[in-house]
Amino acid sequence: MINIAVLGYGTVGSGVVEVINTNHRSINKRAGDEIRIKYVLDLRDFPGDPVQEVLVHDYEVILNDPEVAIVVEVMGGIEPAHTFVKRALLAGKSVATSNKALVAKYGSELMEIAREKDINFLFEASCGGGIPIIRALNSSLTADEIDEITGILNGTANYMLYKMSMEGSDFDSVLKEAQAKGYAEADPTADVEGADASRKIAILSSLAYGKFLDYEEIYTEGITKITPEDMAYAKELGMTIKLLATSRKVDSDSFYALVAPFLLGQNSPLFSVNDVFNAVFIHGNVLGDAMFYGSGAGKLPTASAVVADVVDEAKHLHRNIMTNWSSRALKLMDLDQVNGRFFVRVKGMTVSEVQNIMGPVQIVNLKNLPGEFAFIAAGMTQGEYREKAGKLNGSVITMIRVKD
Amino acid sequence: MINIAVLGYGTVGSGVVEVINTNHRSINKRAGDEIRIKYVLDLRDFPGDPVQEVLVHDYEVILNDPEVAIVVEVMGGIEPAHTFVKRALLAGKSVATSNKALVAKYGSELMEIAREKDINFLFEASCGGGIPIIRALNSSLTADEIDEITGILNGTANYMLYKMSMEGSDFDSVLKEAQAKGYAEADPTADVEGADASRKIAILSSLAYGKFLDYEEIYTEGITKITPEDMAYAKELGMTIKLLATSRKVDSDSFYALVAPFLLGQNSPLFSVNDVFNAVFIHGNVLGDAMFYGSGAGKLPTASAVVADVVDEAKHLHRNIMTNWSSRALKLMDLDQVNGRFFVRVKGMTVSEVQNIMGPVQIVNLKNLPGEFAFIAAGMTQGEYREKAGKLNGSVITMIRVKD
Repeated sequence: MINIAVLGYGTVGSGVVEVINTNHRSINKRAGDEIRIKYVLDLRDFPGDPVQEVLVHDYEVILNDPEVAIVVEVMGGIEPAHTFVKRALLAGKSVATSNKALVAKYGSELMEIAREKDINFLFEASCGGGIPIIRALNSSLTADEIDEITGILNGTANYMLYKMSMEGSDFDSVLKEAQAKGYAEADPTADVEGADASRKIAILSSLAYGKFLDYEEIYTEGITKITPEDMAYAKELGMTIKLLATSRKVDSDSFYALVAPFLLGQNSPLFSVNDVFNAVFIHGNVLGDAMFYGSGAGKLPTASAVVADVVDEAKHLHRNIMTNWSSRALKLMDLDQVNGRFFVRVKGMTVSEVQNIMGPVQIVNLKNLPGEFAFIAAGMTQGEYREKAGKLNGSVITMIRVKD
Repeated sequence: MINIAVLGYGTVGSGVVEVINTNHRSINKRAGDEIRIKYVLDLRDFPGDPVQEVLVHDYEVILNDPEVAIVVEVMGGIEPAHTFVKRALLAGKSVATSNKALVAKYGSELMEIAREKDINFLFEASCGGGIPIIRALNSSLTADEIDEITGILNGTANYMLYKMSMEGSDFDSVLKEAQAKGYAEADPTADVEGADASRKIAILSSLAYGKFLDYEEIYTEGITKITPEDMAYAKELGMTIKLLATSRKVDSDSFYALVAPFLLGQNSPLFSVNDVFNAVFIHGNVLGDAMFYGSGAGKLPTASAVVADVVDEAKHLHRNIMTNWSSRALKLMDLDQVNGRFFVRVKGMTVSEVQNIMGPVQIVNLKNLPGEFAFIAAGMTQGEYREKAGKLNGSVITMIRVKD
């Protein structure tokens, strides 16, 4: 029997309890032992809910119980999650968490403690909800040197862009609809401004490249400025617009990362990742292209990933299994040095004026938008683009990167 | 230092050597020890190739060398692969293989020996080439009870159907083109008749459901009868035709499996898996939908999966890690009892004659195909369909299942 404690009986916490109860037979078989929820920690009481029998309000009870081998942290937020997790690890208890903010900020410290204690700090649910991408990076893609990770990592933003693309509606009305459906929070900032995705790509990049990427160093641009007109241009080009979180290894010690809306063509497997789904595209130097697709959020998919971590920790109670995380910092290139292609809408200029400055470009016109046109410029660095765009004399309506 | 031996220096074998040489630094870091290729077994010599230094022609050298901890079997075929693998396992050496025929036929026996010896028999490359689906089923989706696996598991068939759908060409000309490009073999039977896919879905199903599915019990239908007209109807319906290998758990002890062409709608994540790519769709009872996408074949992607198995075996030298394979037989339902929807082309009948027999149907007409029409019948069992189709008096041109 392996005793676990669940910190937090909110959406994910109650999902974890439900998953362990529903699938206990197969879970115990996979773990090689019975997984028993000995405690659930929450400040609240839940009268009438069977959880009441194992509910405690004081973390010290869990911390001081030597029978508890695994702690599941699903409270979210930085504090007290960080203190609780750190103390659990220091006490020799493995931890499974869904908390991306915690992993993105304190992952290196917590991973280091787990390594010293020969236990585990796992966080499958922190990126891409139920998509088993962390374990794939840690245990499956071990023959490869990963040179690109590009993810659709925020279900809210993906849902909104999908709706805008299907229905031609604008950002504000789609946001209201998403909030009404429970897909967007009352304060949607972290989702629509890209902060959520930047933490996730920081975690995935740290694992893939074996160096710690600080999310605060990632250039992050959200989707709030995307308009129905931008979508119409994308459609005319046979493309769509997605919020991508991406990082690339340019050569052995040069990396870049950013979160931004991108124009995406139909040849990308990410093109048809719609609705609230998430996906992570990986390129490995021997594997080539691979993609992992699934539910990026939701009570049960997230709980499924947390419980899979618990099973892995139960199978490796006294053995650290995270082999590719290092606390050495991953330094990012200046984005100005990064090559790319750029979709640009301009007004009040002629094609030849634009081409004089930008060089040969692919032109797109929309009948219902007279007085403006758009173009995709050939590959250049972002620095070059900025310099050239500066010469367009304020005619630029918008610029969106193109995913190559 | 962990010594390995590679059996067979063909496409995959030379790929394994190349991957280990190319990525040796990161591979050794992941494995926690240096992986050294001590022997490569092949009947041939390779003058001028550095492999010559470690080449042996006699398997006994490998078998009798106690330093060899891991044997990589990439010869293909049943014999002598089966004998070699069995003897390696009995000698306490872990085995990694890409050989789907071997796993589909002798998987249970070989897994059992590995379990008794507390070593490993791993076969990530046997299904879906570089897609890490075996490890996902074994180690990641452990909180779930899987109730569906549906794969595009044969790159040749997928390429051919994709070409037929894009270009309107017929089976024979696409086959010739695929052979010219090296995507189809001189004898394409195993690919186009579904035998290859049936072995792969048997392996995946055995792992997902924890019971051994014998591929010989799977109803298997290939793509040789698919015509440009079928594709045109599919397009008219906003759908496409793919060769799917699928299995489902209907209730706790009822399963069905089949390999056949299916009409597939755009809401399926498998819809846009094109060209030679493979993908595996999974539905878990808590995870919901997930999909894994990547190169289903090819020297380096396949070698990447084989080497990832070697890394896992190096990390678990004396510990069996395959937790969900059992030799108990998985019994399949009679397909006549399985519910589905059916796309049917008929000639020489009226819509009302058809509806009198089939009940309400969705009708599709193609202008350039007068004298016939097609319909999709509402859900019914395959047995009911066969009975009703019998009453259509020989008017049926073709029937293709519809993926729901």
